[in-house]
Amino acid sequence: MVRLKGFQELTSVDDALRTFMNAFRIGQLKTVSVPLNLALGRVLAEDIVAEEDLPRFDRSAVDGFAVKAHYTTGASQFKPKILRAAEGGAVKVWTGNPILEDVDAVVMLENARCVKDGVEVWSPVTPGENVSERGEDVSKGDVAVKKGTRLGPQHLGLIAALGTANVEVFQKPKIAVLATGNELAEPDAKLKSNQVFEVNRYVLSAYCVELGAEPIDLGIAKDNLGEITERLRSGLEMTDAVLTTGGTSVGFADLVPDAVNSTGRPGVIVHGVAMRPAMPTALAVVNGKPVVMLSGNPVAAIVGFEVFARPLICRLLGLNHAEPRPAVKARMTRKVATALGRMNFVRVHVFRRGGEFLAESVSVRGSGVISTMTRANGYVMVPENREGLAKGEMVDVKLFDVVEE
Amino acid sequence: MVRLKGFQELTSVDDALRTFMNAFRIGQLKTVSVPLNLALGRVLAEDIVAEEDLPRFDRSAVDGFAVKAHYTTGASQFKPKILRAAEGGAVKVWTGNPILEDVDAVVMLENARCVKDGVEVWSPVTPGENVSERGEDVSKGDVAVKKGTRLGPQHLGLIAALGTANVEVFQKPKIAVLATGNELAEPDAKLKSNQVFEVNRYVLSAYCVELGAEPIDLGIAKDNLGEITERLRSGLEMTDAVLTTGGTSVGFADLVPDAVNSTGRPGVIVHGVAMRPAMPTALAVVNGKPVVMLSGNPVAAIVGFEVFARPLICRLLGLNHAEPRPAVKARMTRKVATALGRMNFVRVHVFRRGGEFLAESVSVRGSGVISTMTRANGYVMVPENREGLAKGEMVDVKLFDVVEE
Repeated sequence: MVRLKGFQELTSVDDALRTFMNAFRIGQLKTVSVPLNLALGRVLAEDIVAEEDLPRFDRSAVDGFAVKAHYTTGASQFKPKILRAAEGGAVKVWTGNPILEDVDAVVMLENARCVKDGVEVWSPVTPGENVSERGEDVSKGDVAVKKGTRLGPQHLGLIAALGTANVEVFQKPKIAVLATGNELAEPDAKLKSNQVFEVNRYVLSAYCVELGAEPIDLGIAKDNLGEITERLRSGLEMTDAVLTTGGTSVGFADLVPDAVNSTGRPGVIVHGVAMRPAMPTALAVVNGKPVVMLSGNPVAAIVGFEVFARPLICRLLGLNHAEPRPAVKARMTRKVATALGRMNFVRVHVFRRGGEFLAESVSVRGSGVISTMTRANGYVMVPENREGLAKGEMVDVKLFDVVEE
Repeated sequence: MVRLKGFQELTSVDDALRTFMNAFRIGQLKTVSVPLNLALGRVLAEDIVAEEDLPRFDRSAVDGFAVKAHYTTGASQFKPKILRAAEGGAVKVWTGNPILEDVDAVVMLENARCVKDGVEVWSPVTPGENVSERGEDVSKGDVAVKKGTRLGPQHLGLIAALGTANVEVFQKPKIAVLATGNELAEPDAKLKSNQVFEVNRYVLSAYCVELGAEPIDLGIAKDNLGEITERLRSGLEMTDAVLTTGGTSVGFADLVPDAVNSTGRPGVIVHGVAMRPAMPTALAVVNGKPVVMLSGNPVAAIVGFEVFARPLICRLLGLNHAEPRPAVKARMTRKVATALGRMNFVRVHVFRRGGEFLAESVSVRGSGVISTMTRANGYVMVPENREGLAKGEMVDVKLFDVVEE
């Protein structure tokens, strides 16, 4: 039986996300030109078009001897062919060397050797064999790397290969992070008896950095409408989106949603999501800027970030697609019970045994236990219509940390 | 039939890696103190020990009403219990609030409500239910985060929760990157007819950055023993390890290994590895510093980096374990032939179809085709004693990019 105070109705995760992402428009994102060696992880703001074929000429794909293929026909270990200069020669080539017009294939180094009057070949090649054709990699005029791509090392290599030394990338979005709560103290403070150290700004800011955004720390606000409102206003002014933690639980206090509503329109559009943890998550848009109000619980804040802030930030980054976390299929080591009617996020530790990935639940009561998030390296989403996971069940795990080998 | 010029004997991948990693010793790594908000991705150089229990006091794991559990016995939806102030009360608590001595459990908000003369409860709780016990997260004196851990967002949260504002981390290792080859030009140069743009320094430097090391660019050296030797010397002086690309193919020229040997002892210890691509990879130690000589081929350079430079850099970073790439089990969409007697690295594109991960080979002839590395998002290692992968075979894919959903 569920009677929720304040949350008259919980919104499903899918509906909440859709409503939120459709409630604001992102205008033209600002761009900046950066040299290629500083472009790692940035999001490309232009199509990179090949101005010439890559490779620009036919070239050897191996170290060996460039030959006319038909002269090697029938060559074998027992009956090598000797190619002499007159027979189109057998020119030493390194990988990448141009293949000239009078030859059409390359015999690999290990299948030939220099002898007195030419080159001895003991393995035939066909025309084009071991030759990278002009334009094989990228043809002139092709889009080699698309706008909206996050630039990994390989993309940088391909762009360099095309002779591009600077690229236009999107500016890093600025994300404000505000923690609220009378009980919270900075980690270098001396704690009063009922205080705890604030952790969420560290975690959420780090997630922003990992995604390629720039977190702006709005500090810790007391549970005070005026103070929260003031910090929200300055955050909304300085940044592209605001994340808050704490003060979203309906019933006792609703400070952050109230403060958000007082800063502009339309204000809160979702409050209370059918998920566990992170049920009290609220979503708002204020004067065109998105605000994600996360739970004060560290684990719930992380889950809320994953579900709502991550796709938001991916869009602010200019990415073509929201970037999924790496996923593995793993087998549950034991049964886990979850609540019907909620999307449940089960923290798991994935490890390898034999040829298999196993997932062990590390969830414990409550979502305040931050150490479960360092013991876990992933989570499983159990949909609203399931009552849990069976022992031995194969599940899809989203990984936020490496699986040790 | 394989007759390799120069490479009298190829070393197996495992032997080469073991020989190399045992051929140098890394002394005491230097450390630096950084504030927690700048510690993301750094490697911890100290154990983080809890100076107090976390949580420091019993606290509520949910929003609800703190109660004496035995007063709730028998409560149900049809027969709620009313707890009055005299009966140990039913004190409103938020998640994280201290649980005082006269109560021992928390009734969740949705299972109770305030009524005129107290709190109406319709679901019983047992002692300790919904209470996070003092020390449940971390006990005083426990190591919360171990030396040698790469700090992810969650680790930062846990360290903040313990009241630690600065951490000691290892300094970033400096890795010199040198490209060699007469044919190479910088991406902003005007190409001569037989020149190509240099790509490997961009790719390898980006890998170093991704791992958390600091790449030092040694530029492009001509195929000239004196010039290569001079740059190597300066690289060895300034950095913790040197990566080179090009000039390692035995047979026509052996410039880089010769240059390395001329800079100190023991010099080259492995030259020629039973792998494809990246067979001409060479490994050296010069006056205690490791040198990895990679192929000039972009794909071979990447594979050589993965196999030899990555574990080397993980060690220089101070990590407890070499960091594996994320892996998935996927089904090959088609047959792939590979060479017996070599460890083959097959580039694949992994995607989801239905509930399954599929891996499609994107390898094409030659390893100079950099665009295959942007189309691929992972690779499969096919061991020396296998002649290929069958269609439909389940393989272990190491991912270097995300799998789109």
